[in-house]
Amino acid sequence: MSNISNRQWLFVKRPTDAVDESCFKIVTTEVPDIHDGQILLQNLYFSLDASMRTWMNEGPNYLEPLILGQPMRSVTLAKIVKSNNPDFPVGRHVMGMNSWEDYSVSCGDGFCQLLPKTHEIPLSYYLGALGPTGYTAYFGMLDIGCPKSGESVLVSGAAGAVGSIAGQIAKLSGCYVVGLAGSDEKCDWLVSECGYDLAINYKKCDDLDKKLAATFPEGIDIYFDNVGGATLDSALANLANKARIVSCGAVSGYDTGETPSIPIKNHWMLLIREAKMQGFLISSFMHRATEAAEYLGKHIGNGDIRFKEHIVEGFDSAPSALKMLYAGKNTGKLIVKL
Amino acid sequence: MSNISNRQWLFVKRPTDAVDESCFKIVTTEVPDIHDGQILLQNLYFSLDASMRTWMNEGPNYLEPLILGQPMRSVTLAKIVKSNNPDFPVGRHVMGMNSWEDYSVSCGDGFCQLLPKTHEIPLSYYLGALGPTGYTAYFGMLDIGCPKSGESVLVSGAAGAVGSIAGQIAKLSGCYVVGLAGSDEKCDWLVSECGYDLAINYKKCDDLDKKLAATFPEGIDIYFDNVGGATLDSALANLANKARIVSCGAVSGYDTGETPSIPIKNHWMLLIREAKMQGFLISSFMHRATEAAEYLGKHIGNGDIRFKEHIVEGFDSAPSALKMLYAGKNTGKLIVKL
Repeated sequence: MSNISNRQWLFVKRPTDAVDESCFKIVTTEVPDIHDGQILLQNLYFSLDASMRTWMNEGPNYLEPLILGQPMRSVTLAKIVKSNNPDFPVGRHVMGMNSWEDYSVSCGDGFCQLLPKTHEIPLSYYLGALGPTGYTAYFGMLDIGCPKSGESVLVSGAAGAVGSIAGQIAKLSGCYVVGLAGSDEKCDWLVSECGYDLAINYKKCDDLDKKLAATFPEGIDIYFDNVGGATLDSALANLANKARIVSCGAVSGYDTGETPSIPIKNHWMLLIREAKMQGFLISSFMHRATEAAEYLGKHIGNGDIRFKEHIVEGFDSAPSALKMLYAGKNTGKLIVKL
Repeated sequence: MSNISNRQWLFVKRPTDAVDESCFKIVTTEVPDIHDGQILLQNLYFSLDASMRTWMNEGPNYLEPLILGQPMRSVTLAKIVKSNNPDFPVGRHVMGMNSWEDYSVSCGDGFCQLLPKTHEIPLSYYLGALGPTGYTAYFGMLDIGCPKSGESVLVSGAAGAVGSIAGQIAKLSGCYVVGLAGSDEKCDWLVSECGYDLAINYKKCDDLDKKLAATFPEGIDIYFDNVGGATLDSALANLANKARIVSCGAVSGYDTGETPSIPIKNHWMLLIREAKMQGFLISSFMHRATEAAEYLGKHIGNGDIRFKEHIVEGFDSAPSALKMLYAGKNTGKLIVKL
């Protein structure tokens, strides 16, 4: 790999407020050598996920905080270009936890999934609908939300990658599904393409508590929460008895400071509605990845589940693309294509 | 019942802050007549429960808000003194939802439980350890908390009626159990009598987050929450992976205003710890009351579970006794004996 350079986006500043380009610095290094058992990956796509902002803080998290001066951690989709590991042949693709860089070295352990040799869907879907995004929607909705036919479901961040799939899974389970999104275009897409029963542009909503009360006269059975904060409080205020809140994300608080969640006040509703609020991490469900992949592959293949990608071109655009995510400028799965 | 009067404590003012005697007014009326199917109850004990303060607010609750000018709603233990209902013979005792009054009329439906003809424990225990209090601890800890041997459990309001039993049930399940209480005397009682492994006087604790971190180096598996507020936040900050929070009460917020819960900020820990926070109401478990009664009867009978009553004498003292509850002046079950 001589004469080929390895661009890297280093994480160089912990944001105390919104993340911006100043938190990253681009450097060019040499392509690393690989040792026994290792593989060299050429990254083709970076996955941009809301949780990345929380990794930049020093507080407790489900992954270790990012280290200043190191390449920015990211789920990527990559091609194997060198291999000292017979389980990972050159030419095949992997999806896993790597960094914002042209080339990554992996041992193939941990979060490093070899993708099928042939596939009928776009390769990038393995970062999205058929990857961690789809799995998160699948296990979150089905295992934590436990939808029953006829129940009423609210999804926030509904036009995001996870939210859009989560709501469609609830539809396939026979539920009445309402989405919250931040623009009329997103709402149109949710209803006309994704089959949501209703979508509410929360930015045009003066009083979300009242809007939800009118929308769910018998209460919300499942709230799939991607945003936390005031929206979570409004959902809590309108829970049906024995409701389930799927705590998937809290993006409303991620990009506002060092605390990843905004205070809530209506959690007492859990008590009087005999409801539960439960968090989950996709890593705990990866032993059932095949089950999720079969379900998602089938329903994406036959068009039951629609999936949208928002692809930003170019290695250099990774930091600015990440900003887009917190500004809600994307519809569907946000990806950087190298 | 001529010549016998019926004293009643009417609820006459919604408190906007701490409840006090001005919220109630004593009146004397005639003992009511009973119709077909009804029974006349002579109340012997009033149960004082933290949730009573929340009934005084107008907001959503698991029971209808109290109506101004009506007798104060209360669980009572009573003797049947007249009966037009063959299922409820004169001379037997019942425990159920009535009011702060000498005589109540009931149809025997709803929450109205006929007590055993003979019993080896004090009659008042049917309001406490062998009544709603004990059942709440039993179903909350076992069905919501799901304790496994070797797990670590934190109970707040541990010297209260529900808390003291909940912790002892966790001990019987093989857990390490720590209680939070508001005086050294309560803490001594929890350790020396109730078999808690440790009790922390939270009033002497400058930094509960740190104290819990030191007490639970591997995190809290079950938090049985009777108090909500800042204590809940400290517990959230110290959850073990896959932890369960049993949302039983939020007394820290009940007597401070019209909102029954104090905002929390650490609920994001549910997400990163794959934890759940779940509320429950004892009414949903009453079909399994026999199971709870057998468990509690056995363990109270053989001394495995210790139970303390705090009995205040006299009909007139009901309002002031209720104030005691929110000031934390009681240890164990607070009861007014008529």
